[in-house]
Amino acid sequence: MSLKAVALGGGHGLQATLTALRRVTTDVTAVVTVADDGGSSGRLRRELGLLPPGDLRQALATLADAEHGESLWAEVFQHRFGGNGALTGHAVGNLVLAGLFEVLGDPVAALDEARRLLGVSGRVLPMSCEPLDIEAEVTGLSNDDEPTTIRGQVAVASTPGQVRRIELRTLGRPGGEPAACPEAVDAVLGADAVFLGPGSWFTSVLPHLLVPGLHDALLRTRARKVVILNLIPQPGETAGFSPERHLHVLFQHAPELRVDVVIADRGSVPAPARLRDAAGQLGARALLADVADPNEQGLHDPDALAACVREALGRHAGAEDRDGRESREGPWR
Amino acid sequence: MSLKAVALGGGHGLQATLTALRRVTTDVTAVVTVADDGGSSGRLRRELGLLPPGDLRQALATLADAEHGESLWAEVFQHRFGGNGALTGHAVGNLVLAGLFEVLGDPVAALDEARRLLGVSGRVLPMSCEPLDIEAEVTGLSNDDEPTTIRGQVAVASTPGQVRRIELRTLGRPGGEPAACPEAVDAVLGADAVFLGPGSWFTSVLPHLLVPGLHDALLRTRARKVVILNLIPQPGETAGFSPERHLHVLFQHAPELRVDVVIADRGSVPAPARLRDAAGQLGARALLADVADPNEQGLHDPDALAACVREALGRHAGAEDRDGRESREGPWR
Repeated sequence: MSLKAVALGGGHGLQATLTALRRVTTDVTAVVTVADDGGSSGRLRRELGLLPPGDLRQALATLADAEHGESLWAEVFQHRFGGNGALTGHAVGNLVLAGLFEVLGDPVAALDEARRLLGVSGRVLPMSCEPLDIEAEVTGLSNDDEPTTIRGQVAVASTPGQVRRIELRTLGRPGGEPAACPEAVDAVLGADAVFLGPGSWFTSVLPHLLVPGLHDALLRTRARKVVILNLIPQPGETAGFSPERHLHVLFQHAPELRVDVVIADRGSVPAPARLRDAAGQLGARALLADVADPNEQGLHDPDALAACVREALGRHAGAEDRDGRESREGPWR
Repeated sequence: MSLKAVALGGGHGLQATLTALRRVTTDVTAVVTVADDGGSSGRLRRELGLLPPGDLRQALATLADAEHGESLWAEVFQHRFGGNGALTGHAVGNLVLAGLFEVLGDPVAALDEARRLLGVSGRVLPMSCEPLDIEAEVTGLSNDDEPTTIRGQVAVASTPGQVRRIELRTLGRPGGEPAACPEAVDAVLGADAVFLGPGSWFTSVLPHLLVPGLHDALLRTRARKVVILNLIPQPGETAGFSPERHLHVLFQHAPELRVDVVIADRGSVPAPARLRDAAGQLGARALLADVADPNEQGLHDPDALAACVREALGRHAGAEDRDGRESREGPWR
């Protein structure tokens, strides 16, 4: 049986994890943020009141490419209209997903249809079936030390201030709790390994921890939990962040969460001891390896990351695999 | 072997023919007008410089429904976005076809992909691979008797004047001849039976005769040629037209074309003798039958039309079938 891997994230970071995981196992589920309010996704969300489809589309196309190389429908999904008109910048796949959402009335069923079209065996799920907004407490935007509250993924991701903390807001139900997608909760509970990051830390990675149903599933699951750190701070939301500060804010946002392994790129960690301490605060060991793509700054090398994931799971699984037998390697080597 | 049927038209009229033909044979090819400049199609055409996809999408969805009833992707293709934004009124299938056109760079390959998605065995082809404009000579728009030239399918279809004659204009190549889609020419040449109409006479039916390559194929093909007349005049372009006047303008636009059978609804022909004369001018016999849907004014009943098509082809084929053998019935009964 294949290792059941679940990757939580969004955007380019999730792309890196999915591509690497697909080299480790055939059973990959992506659980994707739905708080995007920019670009084609933001326009669709505002115009039609739908889940922002962009990160979901990207995850589908990434799995399609990882599973069978170039495919026509993945290319069509990723294709963006040009020109200067009303369609400029819309990815075709966003429009197809929007149509499926409206016709089927159920984002999960819609995404399952889309993955059949793209011939993807992995599954792509939204973290919540309702569009959400990110609200951030940011300092450094005013002359006094008072924090400012800003709202929206684009605003948070590009703030010149320092993001301190985020919360999720439901639309149309002020003060309501974001509802987890039940299939995403089941995926986390049934997983052998769950991955968080890399990606835009406040706007693609941490939001999952703020959906109560998903947070609880992460506490309850018997899956190995792996955090994959970013290679470089992101201008805007994590400008100047050290690797360990990424872990500190993660701990701040989910103090009860225990993690098994933190994967970091050796060359991107200036102070390994401090990173080990920060990982320890989460109950995790830090695994430093050369996982950066030597040719593209800020990107993970999929093969290196896959090898590192194998190592992270293999050693851990060495204690006891899911059937309770002792083994030095996980079943997915 | 199935009868190879080719239906030339566009819009709702083509829908009627395709639905009826699909009851007669499994081998149906639609050849569709590409001069639409209204609605979702017109916006896509203007914004992206593509073939107007609406009539092509409609033909695909019609064949999908006729072949296997309700199908999800046909429903998604036909679904139109609501709201008040930039996407309002766009059919999802138009956007998918636009994406396929851009990615593949070849409308025929794009339409073949789309029909695979919809599980359609029949083929849908554009009459030309370039978008075209209809230009019409219209009288009654000014106080003198001088004809006025108006341009565009929407303008022609809704004119309060009387349409006398149309021509096709290529875009970007003033005075250029519209190029026929080679696959459409091959379909006509290889057909057992070719159908023209019903539909918007000047804007969906006659344009095919003005594409020289398609016109020549219609003269050269050994297929039975069948014209299916409209049930009622269309407000605007054929207001006040008698059934025989439809045939007169067809003859005007393609004097060399010979037709085998003209199908008309018995209850919609006030003067059968005049219709027979007009059919005779095209070399055709008139076949009058009850083909109107008793419940929906202006629409053909698909079963009745299918029976009439069988009769039209059967009797004609009685003389000699395509293999040269004598038979009283066509092979498709």
